[in-house]
Amino acid sequence: MNIAILGTGMVGATVGKKLTDLGHKVMMGSRTSGNEKALEWVKKCGANASEGKFSDAAAFGELIILCTNGAVTIEAIGLSGKENFKGKTVIDITNPLDFSKGMPPTLIPELTNTNSLGEEVQKTLPDAKVVKTLNTVNCEIMIEPSKLSEETSIYMSGNDAAAKEKVSEILRSFGWTSIIDLGDISTARGTEMILPLWIRLWGALKTGHFNFKIVK
Amino acid sequence: MNIAILGTGMVGATVGKKLTDLGHKVMMGSRTSGNEKALEWVKKCGANASEGKFSDAAAFGELIILCTNGAVTIEAIGLSGKENFKGKTVIDITNPLDFSKGMPPTLIPELTNTNSLGEEVQKTLPDAKVVKTLNTVNCEIMIEPSKLSEETSIYMSGNDAAAKEKVSEILRSFGWTSIIDLGDISTARGTEMILPLWIRLWGALKTGHFNFKIVK
Repeated sequence: MNIAILGTGMVGATVGKKLTDLGHKVMMGSRTSGNEKALEWVKKCGANASEGKFSDAAAFGELIILCTNGAVTIEAIGLSGKENFKGKTVIDITNPLDFSKGMPPTLIPELTNTNSLGEEVQKTLPDAKVVKTLNTVNCEIMIEPSKLSEETSIYMSGNDAAAKEKVSEILRSFGWTSIIDLGDISTARGTEMILPLWIRLWGALKTGHFNFKIVK
Repeated sequence: MNIAILGTGMVGATVGKKLTDLGHKVMMGSRTSGNEKALEWVKKCGANASEGKFSDAAAFGELIILCTNGAVTIEAIGLSGKENFKGKTVIDITNPLDFSKGMPPTLIPELTNTNSLGEEVQKTLPDAKVVKTLNTVNCEIMIEPSKLSEETSIYMSGNDAAAKEKVSEILRSFGWTSIIDLGDISTARGTEMILPLWIRLWGALKTGHFNFKIVK
């Protein structure tokens, strides 16, 4: 499948590399073509990888994956051309982290509690099928959950059942076996709001390689 | 130990009963003495249990446990007489759930993200040692974590190390073996903010008898 990765950070680079390893054609998009980090990533990934402007990548992808900093996600969608998302499945991995008030980060007030970044993305792209997932784990766990000593769960939020099935296939190809469909895109509030606990546990456990297993 | 339970709901009744079973003297406090639910609870618990006004209970307890509805917790502290908390350890089990906007509840905006109910309690009672704990599980799991099929973790947030050690003893007496000290009371933001996910999982799993196990 042709896949767009929007964002050149660790999450985009890691998820994008995994997808090229799995045989997908992946274009990484950023503000400008020829972005240094994107070029480095293409070199590392090989023939399945390419890079370009946000709008080039969004036009290229049958599936578009949002891996930008949460604070600029909506802006990046605008730069990508909303028409390039029409009818497509969009995986939203972003978190509305607010670093403006110091460390540890809080969440962007207008994108939490009674709203979420996932919902904001869906409102911005009413013709796309947004699925929020993978935002609750470190990027190395995202693409290789078997790094953990036991099976843990990953969550999915979205309004479109077919899009969620498509995303489940991608998740299964990464090694996820316990995928919990929380419901519509408003359930992204819940997964985005565990970030403050996640960040404190990262500090307490001295590693980002962890996830929650639901025990009944 | 003499313990006060503030609140007559399910959480107060369940935790209070467990503490009487463990041999503590427990007084349940509410707005009025002779509250019907409190009297019923005393009858069920036997000789170690008593009831009275919020202020009677707070004066009685060497340890005070807040089990009120989150929206009225600060008001209940006022009714209990702030002087009755001076120097004492206070366990805060409350969550700032906001039912005013319909179901599922959101969190009270001024008590989340950049603040928490735990911090608000500590600010209201600067001479007390507030420890936030147990607010991330159903009340039956609070007092009997072995009901779950595997060991899971419980979190603790608070500014005073000695108070946290005292609270750890109570938690261990309930059967908790993995107690994670997240840090100061501001870390209560993280545990309160998992409620929206918790509520959605309650719906998806069709049971409130679950908890998160941290897998590395």
